[in-house]
Amino acid sequence: MNTRVSELFGIQYPILQGGMAYVSTAKLAAAVSQAGGLGVISAMELSAEELREEIRKARGLTSKPFGVNLFLRNAKVEQTAQVVAQEKVPVVTTSAGMPSRFMPLWLSAGVKVVPVVPNVAMARRVVKDGAAAVIAEGCEAGGHIGELTTFTLVPQIREAVGVPVIAAGGIANGRGMAAALLLGASGVQCGTRFLAANECEVPQCFVDEILRARDSDTMVVGRRLGQPVRALKNSYMMEFAQREMDPMITNAELENYGSGALWRAVRQGDMVSGCIMAGQAASMVKDTLPARDIILRMVTEARELLSAAPTTVF
Amino acid sequence: MNTRVSELFGIQYPILQGGMAYVSTAKLAAAVSQAGGLGVISAMELSAEELREEIRKARGLTSKPFGVNLFLRNAKVEQTAQVVAQEKVPVVTTSAGMPSRFMPLWLSAGVKVVPVVPNVAMARRVVKDGAAAVIAEGCEAGGHIGELTTFTLVPQIREAVGVPVIAAGGIANGRGMAAALLLGASGVQCGTRFLAANECEVPQCFVDEILRARDSDTMVVGRRLGQPVRALKNSYMMEFAQREMDPMITNAELENYGSGALWRAVRQGDMVSGCIMAGQAASMVKDTLPARDIILRMVTEARELLSAAPTTVF
Repeated sequence: MNTRVSELFGIQYPILQGGMAYVSTAKLAAAVSQAGGLGVISAMELSAEELREEIRKARGLTSKPFGVNLFLRNAKVEQTAQVVAQEKVPVVTTSAGMPSRFMPLWLSAGVKVVPVVPNVAMARRVVKDGAAAVIAEGCEAGGHIGELTTFTLVPQIREAVGVPVIAAGGIANGRGMAAALLLGASGVQCGTRFLAANECEVPQCFVDEILRARDSDTMVVGRRLGQPVRALKNSYMMEFAQREMDPMITNAELENYGSGALWRAVRQGDMVSGCIMAGQAASMVKDTLPARDIILRMVTEARELLSAAPTTVF
Repeated sequence: MNTRVSELFGIQYPILQGGMAYVSTAKLAAAVSQAGGLGVISAMELSAEELREEIRKARGLTSKPFGVNLFLRNAKVEQTAQVVAQEKVPVVTTSAGMPSRFMPLWLSAGVKVVPVVPNVAMARRVVKDGAAAVIAEGCEAGGHIGELTTFTLVPQIREAVGVPVIAAGGIANGRGMAAALLLGASGVQCGTRFLAANECEVPQCFVDEILRARDSDTMVVGRRLGQPVRALKNSYMMEFAQREMDPMITNAELENYGSGALWRAVRQGDMVSGCIMAGQAASMVKDTLPARDIILRMVTEARELLSAAPTTVF
């Protein structure tokens, strides 16, 4: 399936796997890339040397291109940004802010920079700085989110910038992929769907929560801190929401309560006091599959819907 | 453009005009129906007799089918529900709750009942009660909203129920319409787009705010009251948000502050202390047009995108 995004990255299918903190390891990223998509390693908790090892591990598992995701508010980002350039990683995706200060470094190393953008203004700015593409991520996504939805964000960013647009947020199957392409995207990024990939290293209890999720089972907390986060409803999230409403609790206390919660869910399998980050697409994830099958099924379904579109009676 | 929705209502194009309180008058609804869509009169502020007059006024302006929207939390709904049945209005759309108690009355009068639903559970329940179709409205819509986005809501409701699904929230052009159809809808409902119809009777200053709006110019308040509402950012909305965060302000005081705000904007043209309800699609509304041209342009664009889909290089 040839699109501007598959051309840009030299991949077979225009599907990126989202850089999920603690979740998107070399193993998952390599499986996605090996299957023809673009796997992305999350640098979240890694030191510079750990990231370098993870990149090399991915290179040992696949000769195809992959990416690294940097969360720009991370304390170690100055160091990990250097590693991305030194290792000449084909693609870097960035979250939570403007990557301007790293752009010259990356561009001179031949790294394609693809920022996640929550609105038109930011899309315009990163393209001016040299972004090769942008990821237009709607607020139905899991983890840290913006305000605009995939449905309104994608067409507006498509109209505002010349580089290819990758739609993210709410996409877990071929129907979503086909709709995203018609909205103006040239590719999609999926996070939640890959939580249920065989190669994903989260504990089985985490995957089970995704498979069990129904449409109204995610919620958003952290708006008071200016950092809204979407995750599955559980004790941790309900408690966070309650504390957020409590004027006696300071922002520092609230941040402290949130700290380590994702780690507890992903690395300790704590489904009660951990933060099970996932998007609204969770309820559309119904089975665990190899990354390859997730991608092939999505592409096949999208292609069929698009091919049939002129004669479909809706 | 024939779809299950156009068949169901006996209309030419599967486009509904949203029932916007104080905005969706007989004049606007009749213009939309006359153009081949389905116009919808909002019963919000009307007494039973006033609604009857409005229905008759619409009948004087068009011989084509139209609908009435009832906001189920409205105090006058017991009376206006009777009028819908007595006048044998072709279609009634309902907002903000379950219309179960009125279903036998409407169904026996031959009225097609089409509830707005924010999640799968409610879609299943209204269909069991006899709904002819459902409006799956994402949280990018203006006014009272749910939690799920159009992108995730539409395909899940499509899969859950057998009746036709009408997508609402974030749709203002043919691109959105085409994407909504691919997501599983058989028609669309547009509210914000029709605020800039020539036949819409809101003050020019209200329309100007819509035309000026950029992508990040809406916000949501009222979550504390369990009644989130989306509108354009202005003094009124910022003040509401601030009061909502203030623990010294009771819910009753908050409700009192919100009361009459939409009326001030729509009927008095008060753009400062009025509530300019609009969806995220506002930033995609760039011109005022006759309802007919809004519909024709949307259908033409959607049809072109769907026809080209098999060979488009995305």
